[in-house]
Order: sequence, then structure tokens, then C-alpha cells
Amino acid sequence: MRMYDLIMKKRNGGKLSQPEIKYMIEGYTDGSIPDYQMSAMLMAIWFKGMDDEEITEMTKIMARTGDIIDLSDIKGLKVDKHSTGGVGDKTTLIITPIVAACGGIVAKMSGRGLGHTGGTVDKLESIPGYRTDIDRQKFIDTVNSCGASVIGQTGNIAPADKKLYALRDVTATVDSIPLIASSIMSKKLADGSDYILLDVTTGSGAFMKTLDDSIKLAQTMVNIGEGAGKKTVALITDMDVPLGHAIGNSLEVIESMEVLKGRGPADLIEVCMQLATNMLYLIGKGSVEECRNMAEKSIKDGSALEAFCKMVEAQGGDASYLRDTDKFERAPYSLEVKAAADGWITHMNAEKCGIASVELGAGRETKESSIDFPAGIIMQKKYGDKVKKGETIATLYTCREDSLKDAEALYQEAITIGNEEPAPEKLVFARIEKDKVERF
Amino acid sequence: MRMYDLIMKKRNGGKLSQPEIKYMIEGYTDGSIPDYQMSAMLMAIWFKGMDDEEITEMTKIMARTGDIIDLSDIKGLKVDKHSTGGVGDKTTLIITPIVAACGGIVAKMSGRGLGHTGGTVDKLESIPGYRTDIDRQKFIDTVNSCGASVIGQTGNIAPADKKLYALRDVTATVDSIPLIASSIMSKKLADGSDYILLDVTTGSGAFMKTLDDSIKLAQTMVNIGEGAGKKTVALITDMDVPLGHAIGNSLEVIESMEVLKGRGPADLIEVCMQLATNMLYLIGKGSVEECRNMAEKSIKDGSALEAFCKMVEAQGGDASYLRDTDKFERAPYSLEVKAAADGWITHMNAEKCGIASVELGAGRETKESSIDFPAGIIMQKKYGDKVKKGETIATLYTCREDSLKDAEALYQEAITIGNEEPAPEKLVFARIEKDKVERF
Repeated sequence: MRMYDLIMKKRNGGKLSQPEIKYMIEGYTDGSIPDYQMSAMLMAIWFKGMDDEEITEMTKIMARTGDIIDLSDIKGLKVDKHSTGGVGDKTTLIITPIVAACGGIVAKMSGRGLGHTGGTVDKLESIPGYRTDIDRQKFIDTVNSCGASVIGQTGNIAPADKKLYALRDVTATVDSIPLIASSIMSKKLADGSDYILLDVTTGSGAFMKTLDDSIKLAQTMVNIGEGAGKKTVALITDMDVPLGHAIGNSLEVIESMEVLKGRGPADLIEVCMQLATNMLYLIGKGSVEECRNMAEKSIKDGSALEAFCKMVEAQGGDASYLRDTDKFERAPYSLEVKAAADGWITHMNAEKCGIASVELGAGRETKESSIDFPAGIIMQKKYGDKVKKGETIATLYTCREDSLKDAEALYQEAITIGNEEPAPEKLVFARIEKDKVERF
Repeated sequence: MRMYDLIMKKRNGGKLSQPEIKYMIEGYTDGSIPDYQMSAMLMAIWFKGMDDEEITEMTKIMARTGDIIDLSDIKGLKVDKHSTGGVGDKTTLIITPIVAACGGIVAKMSGRGLGHTGGTVDKLESIPGYRTDIDRQKFIDTVNSCGASVIGQTGNIAPADKKLYALRDVTATVDSIPLIASSIMSKKLADGSDYILLDVTTGSGAFMKTLDDSIKLAQTMVNIGEGAGKKTVALITDMDVPLGHAIGNSLEVIESMEVLKGRGPADLIEVCMQLATNMLYLIGKGSVEECRNMAEKSIKDGSALEAFCKMVEAQGGDASYLRDTDKFERAPYSLEVKAAADGWITHMNAEKCGIASVELGAGRETKESSIDFPAGIIMQKKYGDKVKKGETIATLYTCREDSLKDAEALYQEAITIGNEEPAPEKLVFARIEKDKVERF
């Protein structure tokens, strides 16, 4: 077999067979196929696509290039949630304890933030003492005793994906549905959960800017999951506007605790309820309605908050910060962003809001950048809110005083104030199961 | 400027500006742009193409990455001919002396054979004593005294093309008209002639297998030449069938001398007459008809043969071999290929005939392979000829006895014998000038 012939075949619109895909992915991972041939192939895939069978085979082979996490020592039905990324997306902090409180099992490996989106591991590490680098046995013990554990990605998960992603990133081949779907799902297949809920974000802050593309990506990922024997459901959620009112690590933990205490912003509550409901539904806890009631009850009776505190304590964290979030350290510098005109906020560019938060120190520009846990943004006014000129619409927090002016300019650019009240925000656009698309 | 953005732009169907193309070609040539980004770009160009302006700019920049040959010490109008390659194509050996005998100037650098096509330099070197590696001054003196000189490619001609071609060759991006046209023309622009005649071959033995693609390639190359200020004309000639009756280095020299002596096969004579006519026309020697008469006269009166002998002697060759071609050494082993059936030869796969000749030792599989000058094939029967089962259709010559059986099998595969007489072979399909396509 020669890589040259495979490039030619794909370029001409052909379908790659399982042995061909195996040759290509394993050869690229072990270095016998050079970058310049793989980048030509990636561009050919960008133009010609792949069918569901090719994508599923490729994803399975990518997953098998590294460790497959064995969670068989954990009793019960393990359900994982994966988001394609967003700004202010703290849903993992909320739905993990809800599912655990309702009897589900969440054994989750999360990533760090990069670019304009934050990462769950960074958010959790803003809780004093919380360890995301516990060993395998401690991870399993925590899940068995608390119903949930969230740690950082460990081991050698899908090295083919790491190498491919780095190449796509410099060859303008990132935005291809077969390549995005196989990248995400190769890690999910290696992660060892039995059930997968996908949160596919759509809009200005997301990978996919249009609803149709988001649905196509979701269908592709559901097909991969099901093709690999894992029950998979996807929700398409809005990321045209940042989720909730807080962006930044400890600021998002504080907001998440508000939700677990029965307060917090309506948009965040609703998205979390739908995500948690579908996770419970996936593991067979009842009808969608029954699962929703269960999830709501876990907030009302405080069991979700307790489940979170228990997990945090098991991983070395100080849960007193969660019960009394005033204990969190505040950033030394802040600045109020004022409305530039009277009117309604008719658009928020989520990506730009995220970039403003990175500027403040809440995220990383490169893998090597350091972050400040208390840095970030509290958005007093959001999409659809009426504002008066000069009124505070957001407060910026930072440990780097000289970043405030640039971040303010970025944030102002992200906000559009118009003369007419805009249509209400839609939070969840669609739900995708195998061979079924339900639009809301 | 970032290569990433240029890949993205081309991938999305955009047009690259002159500064962008300069950045890309110079950066790739000096190594600051890596292979893996260039191969993604090449694939994007394969899919999205380039317009005439992009192709002309790219070609000019590729030419300027290396030496531009200065032929200003040579008096008169210099005309070059370039063929896109073929099997049995010895036209340079015939038309160069015709043009010189008619008062034109040919200062030509040629290549060696690789793969199934031969190279003029190898053919000339089969003449005992002929030097293709003479220095610049000797080259100029030879042209000034003989009207013609053919030498090997010297100096650092279009290094961008060398690097790009090597990358295209392993990434399935060879067969792209913008890339083929810029590759050929970058070398022609660097070669220093004022006028260019392009011999664009079409059919089974050529780069372009269909007439439409060949015309498109020819138009693209004519536009590049004219865009760079060189008067350029292209002929589309047949390479579905090998040209003439001989394949192999000294065998082709012998056949060329037959033509210069007023004998030789009709197809070869006709193609050479049309090429020589157009070269004379390009440099303003008269109307197409007048130029044709001039070319025919140079054969009849022996002046073309004399011009060739003079050039060969000036470059150290023994012209007595040309006057008496029986002096050429013959290959020690030969085998007659017999017709497998009664009928007519309805198809000859020129590429396979070429591969059979390489097997016999007449060509190179890789740059490092050695060749045997007397090896090759004499085709007694060609396309359109009536044959009887068992009759000799070709004789194979070699210095490597054990190659005969494989070469015979390859040659038999190349030949189709049918029950009906096929349509007569067309030799020249079209003539292309700037903004003008004349089909014959």
C-alpha cells in the first residue's frame, strides 16, 4: 500500500477502505507517513469529505493508537458529556453533581482552556486544594464513593488525534466535519464511558457558526458513537451569546454554585437542566419528563450541591468555599464597562467576549501561558436586555492592571446596542439521536 | 503575511495576489515555508485552480528563484522549442538543424530521460565524442558559428520548480494544469530565448490524455509566455502512438539522420515539418507557407544535414557516424516480436512502449540508473498497419539479455490487433496562439 495512491483515491472522490485508513492513521502516528503527504490528504478530505463508514473506522483506529481507559472497576452505567466548546460554559460543574445525585455515574476526564474558550480543569483548580491529577486508583475510588470524579486528561489518549490536530491547525483544514467529528470522538471512544451526551454548540462563539452545520456535525458524531457501540445523543445549544453571566475560572465556579443552590441565571439553568435530563435519560433513569423532574428535585433538595461538595472534598478541595463563595479571592483590579448608547443589546459576539477574558488573564493564548483564577468578566447586561447610555453592562476583573483598557475595547466591540428589542434567545435548538433529528 | 491564510484563501476559491505568490514561492524555496503547508496549498490549487494572472505571476517568480540565462551575446532571434514529452520523440534532433539551415538561431538546453520518456541529451551523447557539458563561452561560440547548439541543462535553473515538482510527485498533485504549465514555463522563461514554440503532446504517452485538456494546457502556457513578453505558439501533436519507428538513443539518432537525408517515416517527417515551420514563422521568416517551403528545401538540398554535422563537430562529436549511420554500435541481443493475430494494429499504448524500452536499457527508471545507447525498439508495424499472425511487428535490442522476455510481454500488452482497419492517425490536432485556437 502506498500513501500516494490513497491521496489520489480520496482526491478523486473515492472511498477509503478500513485497511487503507488503518495504514494511513497508524503510519502517520508512527512517523512512517510524512507530514507533507498527510496534509495533502487532509486537504483532499476537506474537499471530498468522508462517508459515515469511513469516519467511524477512522475514529476507531485513531482511538486505538493510544490508551483505552478501562473503567470496568467502576460499578454502574457511566455517562460522559462532551461540549464542542464555548465561552462561559461551566455546565460540567453543574450537571456532573446533578447526575451523581440522581444515581448516575460520571467518570470524566476534562481539558484545560486554550484560546477564547475556558477549560473545566482550570475552573476546578480554582477551588483551593482541588487536585485534578489524582492517580487511576484514587479516580476510581472517588467515582465509586461519590458517583462522580472530574480529573485532567491523563495517559496517552489518541496520539493520532494530537498529531493530526497540530497539522490541521497549520494547514487550514480544521473546519471539516469528518475531521472535527473524528477528532472529538476518538478521545471519547478512548475515555471508557458507556453512554455519551454531546453538547454541540452553535453560533459566534462555537466551531460551527450555522445551525445546519452544527446538526450535520452532531449527526456525524452520533453515528460514530453508535457505530462504536456506545449509545450517543446530542443537543445543539446556543453559543452565540456566552452562557450565564460569568466568564473566568473562580467566577464561573461561584456562578455554578448559585445554580446548585437554586439561584443563578435562567439561561444557564435551562441548558444545564436539558443536558442533565438527557444524561439521565441515556442511562435509562426514565422518560425525558421523569428525568427532568429528577434533575430539578436534586437542586431543590440540595442533593446536587452535596454531591459536588463530596467530590471536591474527595479530591482534596476545600468545600467551605463552595458553601460560602465569598471566601474566594477577588481580583485586585476592576473596571466597569458602560453602555455606549440607549437601546437593547441585540448581539453579543461570544468569541470576542472570550478573547477579552483571555486578555484579562482568565485564559491562555498559548499552552505555556499562565492564568489568574479570579480574573474574568461579570456581564450585568446580556442579549435582549434594555440598557441606558452610561449604565454598567459588565465588570472586568484582573490581576494585570494594564490589561483593562484593551479588554474594555474588545468587550465594547463584542456588544451591539440597537433600537429595537431583539427576539428572545433560543437556548437549545435540536436534539439528535441515531437516525432522528428533533428541532425545537 | 502567513502561509496559513494563503492556504485558506485558495481553499475557499480566492485569488492570490502577486505579493502573496512571491511570499509563498520564495518562502518555500528558501525553506521558511515547510513542505506540509505547501502540499496543502498544492492540493487546494489542484481543486480550485488559478487564473491566468496568478499562473503568470507564479511562473515569473519561479523563474527568478534561480539563474536567468543571458543570451545577449548571441546575435539574431533565438527560438526555443519545448515538448511536454513523449515516446520516440526525436524532433529536436531534426528541427534544430532545419531552423539553423534557414537562418534561425537555436540555443537550447535539454534534459535527460526519466521514466517512460527519453531525453535529447542522452540521444545526442550516443554520438561518439559529442559533449553536452561544454561551458558557457563554448556554447555561445557554437551558436554564433553554427546557428545552433544543444547542451545539457546547466546552472541553477528555477530551483523553486525542482522543489515543487518533487513535492507534487509524492502528494498526487502532478496532474494540475496551472502546476504543469508553471513548472514547464518557469524553466523556459529562465532559458533566455526570445521566441518559444511549445509541442504539447496528447494521448496515451503524454501528460494530458485528452485533446481538450491538452488545448487548455497549451493555452495556459501560451498566456504565460506572452505575459512574460515572449512570443509563444503551441502545436498539439499526437502521442497516442510513438513517433517514428525507433525508440532508444542511437536508434533515434539514426532515424533522425534518415529524415535529414530526405527519407524516414512519414509521421515523423510531417510533425517535424510543422514544428520547424512554426519556429521559422515565430521569428518572422515569412508566412506559414513560405516557412514550410523553406524547411522542405533545407532537407532536399542537404543544408539541414550539414548544419547538424557542423554543430556535432563543434561540440566534439564524430560526424562520420551521422553520414554513415552503419558505424553506430549495435546491441548484442535482439528479439523479434510477432503479431499475435491477423488484423490491423488498432491501438498502441505509447507509455507501455516506452516502459518496454526502459526495461531493455534505453531509459532510466530512477535518476541513478545507467542507460545503454544501442538498446531500444524498432517498430516495423505501427498503428493502422495490416499484420498477419506470426509476422514480425517489432525488434527489441538490448545489452541485457535477460530483459528480453519481460520487454516482449510489455510490448505485446501495448499493442491491440483488431479486425477492422482503424481511422488514419492524426498527427497535429491544433495550433494555439494568444487568444486563438485553430483546430485541424
